[in-house]
Amino acid sequence: MGKYTLLKKSHKVRRGRFETVHGTIQTPVFMNVGTLAAIKGAVSSMDLKEIGCQVELSNTYHLHLRPGDQVVKKLGGLHKFMNWDRPILTDSGGFQVFSLSHIRKIQEEGVYFNSHIDGRKIFMGPEESMQIQSNLGSTIAMAFDECIPNPSPRDYVVKSVERTTRWLQRCKVEMDRLNSLDHTVNKNQMLFGINQGGVYEDIRIEHAKTISKMNLDGYAIGGLAVGETHEEMYRIIDAVVPHLPQEKPIYLMGVGLPSNILEAVDRGVDFFDCVLPARNGRHGHVFTKHGKINLMNAKYELDDSPIDEGCQCPTCKHYSRAYIRHLFKAKEMLAMRLCVLHNLYFYNKLMEDIRNAIDGDYFKEFKEEKLANWNGKA
Amino acid sequence: MGKYTLLKKSHKVRRGRFETVHGTIQTPVFMNVGTLAAIKGAVSSMDLKEIGCQVELSNTYHLHLRPGDQVVKKLGGLHKFMNWDRPILTDSGGFQVFSLSHIRKIQEEGVYFNSHIDGRKIFMGPEESMQIQSNLGSTIAMAFDECIPNPSPRDYVVKSVERTTRWLQRCKVEMDRLNSLDHTVNKNQMLFGINQGGVYEDIRIEHAKTISKMNLDGYAIGGLAVGETHEEMYRIIDAVVPHLPQEKPIYLMGVGLPSNILEAVDRGVDFFDCVLPARNGRHGHVFTKHGKINLMNAKYELDDSPIDEGCQCPTCKHYSRAYIRHLFKAKEMLAMRLCVLHNLYFYNKLMEDIRNAIDGDYFKEFKEEKLANWNGKA
Ligand SMILES: [Zn+2]
Ligand SMILES: [Zn+2]
Repeated sequence: MGKYTLLKKSHKVRRGRFETVHGTIQTPVFMNVGTLAAIKGAVSSMDLKEIGCQVELSNTYHLHLRPGDQVVKKLGGLHKFMNWDRPILTDSGGFQVFSLSHIRKIQEEGVYFNSHIDGRKIFMGPEESMQIQSNLGSTIAMAFDECIPNPSPRDYVVKSVERTTRWLQRCKVEMDRLNSLDHTVNKNQMLFGINQGGVYEDIRIEHAKTISKMNLDGYAIGGLAVGETHEEMYRIIDAVVPHLPQEKPIYLMGVGLPSNILEAVDRGVDFFDCVLPARNGRHGHVFTKHGKINLMNAKYELDDSPIDEGCQCPTCKHYSRAYIRHLFKAKEMLAMRLCVLHNLYFYNKLMEDIRNAIDGDYFKEFKEEKLANWNGKA
Repeated sequence: MGKYTLLKKSHKVRRGRFETVHGTIQTPVFMNVGTLAAIKGAVSSMDLKEIGCQVELSNTYHLHLRPGDQVVKKLGGLHKFMNWDRPILTDSGGFQVFSLSHIRKIQEEGVYFNSHIDGRKIFMGPEESMQIQSNLGSTIAMAFDECIPNPSPRDYVVKSVERTTRWLQRCKVEMDRLNSLDHTVNKNQMLFGINQGGVYEDIRIEHAKTISKMNLDGYAIGGLAVGETHEEMYRIIDAVVPHLPQEKPIYLMGVGLPSNILEAVDRGVDFFDCVLPARNGRHGHVFTKHGKINLMNAKYELDDSPIDEGCQCPTCKHYSRAYIRHLFKAKEMLAMRLCVLHNLYFYNKLMEDIRNAIDGDYFKEFKEEKLANWNGKA
């Protein structure tokens, strides 16, 4: 089981250390998303080490369909499969079930839906999600929850959150059972619960209080960054964080822009993940100390400076904006790889700088300076 | 200008060293093709260093269209543009003019054709090809020649080869002029002439004798591997090589399979290039000590061994056949990158082993053993 140590706290800002069987995570941390056991953009687990990634995140739903969690288990689990010896977090599959499949039926036992690949019928409930994640052998498994669309009517949200709580209890029982079995890949697999409740503060708080009593390894805030404004998101984080156990890590799921991360750290969040840096990179949108720029812009045609002056990533150390822009225009895959490497490095380095700022008691000034430099462009 | 030193000769087999302003090339050598100043499959110039590439080859026609040779020149030439400090060979654009554009008109001054990208009319003759290659600043430029389709009638081949000889004379004059200009990127750019003549031995030999008198930096055999049988190709190599200057490097263009390379080295060839290892890699076809295998094959689903046991490439050191097969099935770009890295390493390592075999006086045995092991599958 994981051990979270709060190293420092200033107002709500937390600097921590989370020990796992796959090594120690320094928090706040940004997890790098490798949906199908690979980062989109031809980035490998070896590359992740070079760009300072602490935790890799893979998607349960996708790996269940391809190559199949049984295949991954037979090959020794996700760590061995993708050759990554540091922590891995797997999501529950819930988000994909609700976002990728258009035909679905939610019942008390779980969700019936159609595969987005071949349309075949699949059932996934708390036990199935835990079983798949156990087969993958990730360091941290996420509880199976319902991701409610935004906006949703209040009475539906109340009922959904109550069911998500019952599902969480079933997840916990099933994980305990799986961790006790002889052939389980990672018998120390941890479980994070997920707070839901849409944009209704009182439902969120009530749910946070309920799951806090369940002695989970960590707590996530889910169902945000699904269309609400940044201000609504910050309001919910402000409301929920004080009601989660302070001796456990807090994970804000699927967020977000560098500025969102700074604001959420300021509100007590420890873990982050987002597809945004990789997705942006694949389109030539790259982060710099002066905000995001679009390398497709004609003004970079003869620009022989790196994406971000002073950046120590493998891309900026060797290649120019002009060269990478040419690669995009020529439809060379290398363009995507170079930009994804830079963007993920940018995020991982930002988290390192945040940790140093908390350690050095200058986080507030650091945050204000970054936000001013990005000028609304990150 | 380049200096070729014949280090060892046994029967026709040559072991040499070619000194250039961008470093020394040990021959026999396989050049790694980066058409648009990048290897297809998200492989960078940094990767090329890791997999033992000595010479990078880029395509004049493609770079003329994108990003434009003037842009590359403004950015300091191809070496600076793609951050590669070792030798670069550029082709003349001739092959692409004849293979990619369906509407074209060949005249004494050169070729009128339509861009394969936007259809706009372009003219390229010997002077234009030299000018573009001079702007790119490659180490070795190739002469502009006509690539004759196979089969072609004898009287057409005779006329075409005579024109190619006149074009070669114009290339030499123009390169001398360009190398003498103040603003030229690489004033030591070298010129290789190209032997043509289809499958007519006597035309080939006559042409080889003629261009041998022109004191070029190297000599290529072009117009092969365009549909003729391997036996026809070997027959032409056997006929031509004795009539090319033995104190200059000999380059067999666009060839080929590992077995073709062994046969051509045995016939006195020093330089090779081919898109085959990268193209095969992008489709999951990878070379091993037991011949080529197709990673898409279902039998590799649970195969946790590397592509080629004992291979020291970045792919085989870290990833399994099962993992790479999964990446292909999941359409992850990383699949292509890993296979291209392996295949290029395989070729570069093969050349190193060939050089060691010649140095150690066991090339014949080496060749026979390799061909037997590959069993017709390479
Ligand atoms: Zn960078
Ligand atoms: Zn290999």
